[in-house]
Amino acid sequence: MIKMKTIYFIRHGIAKDGDDDKIRPLSEKGILKTQKVADRLSQQGVRFDLMLFSPLLRAKQSARILANLADRAEECAHLSPEGKLTQWLEEFKSIEFDSLALVGHQPNLTDWAEQMVWGYVHNKLILKKAGIIGIEIPTLSESVGRGTLFLLTSPMWLLD
Amino acid sequence: MIKMKTIYFIRHGIAKDGDDDKIRPLSEKGILKTQKVADRLSQQGVRFDLMLFSPLLRAKQSARILANLADRAEECAHLSPEGKLTQWLEEFKSIEFDSLALVGHQPNLTDWAEQMVWGYVHNKLILKKAGIIGIEIPTLSESVGRGTLFLLTSPMWLLD
Repeated sequence: MIKMKTIYFIRHGIAKDGDDDKIRPLSEKGILKTQKVADRLSQQGVRFDLMLFSPLLRAKQSARILANLADRAEECAHLSPEGKLTQWLEEFKSIEFDSLALVGHQPNLTDWAEQMVWGYVHNKLILKKAGIIGIEIPTLSESVGRGTLFLLTSPMWLLD
Repeated sequence: MIKMKTIYFIRHGIAKDGDDDKIRPLSEKGILKTQKVADRLSQQGVRFDLMLFSPLLRAKQSARILANLADRAEECAHLSPEGKLTQWLEEFKSIEFDSLALVGHQPNLTDWAEQMVWGYVHNKLILKKAGIIGIEIPTLSESVGRGTLFLLTSPMWLLD
């Protein structure tokens, strides 16, 4: 039996408005909610062998808040809003992991998750800020259309 | 703008083994976890205009635990393991509701949810006992392939 691998897609928290999208910081509420989500994941014993995060400030800040959950954390340009799943897979398909976190943006995260689970983008998943998708896949190199979805939640379901 | 309607698919809690599948009761752990899920939903302000539940004992008992959340609750044969979405829709497509709960069994619940969201059964959703799926649809009569998924969770994410 194949041991399935877990990928968590985590959307950055609520950010402030600003002219330069690359440097919009998290709002106070965004920091607070993301911290609560991180605490909840920690309480559930969730760990990431590797966490990759978008270079945009709001995603970097979210990843920093989640850092205690990850053995390793790296910035990854493929997770920016222009990133493509196929290009990311091409670069990362051989990495070893049991549990991986991808911290980034919409619509990329639901697009990637849908491609891994259903093989296509259907625009059928609603992912709120600081929300989480959890999927299982056999391997990254055989991930497209091969995943199953075990978690989709906005922060409200995780918080008190 | 159409006001979307919400359907929660809730799987019965953990049940005891038994020869007659129709009368297997919830185990103590099943009762406890389902109660905690009910408390959590209540805490989040979740209400059901109507809750329909399978005639099998473990689903009836689960619905009884969830009863405080529902204005009305009714047994519904379509939610038994043999039930078909098309037949249920034929009978219930004209009902009025904003929030509906369907308490039943696997694989029916994920089959129905997948049909409402993606139009087909893909066997891509993992729904644990006392787990919940939340979807939004425009109307029941136009539900197949028209829904969006906003929640999929096992009880562990909802409990302390």
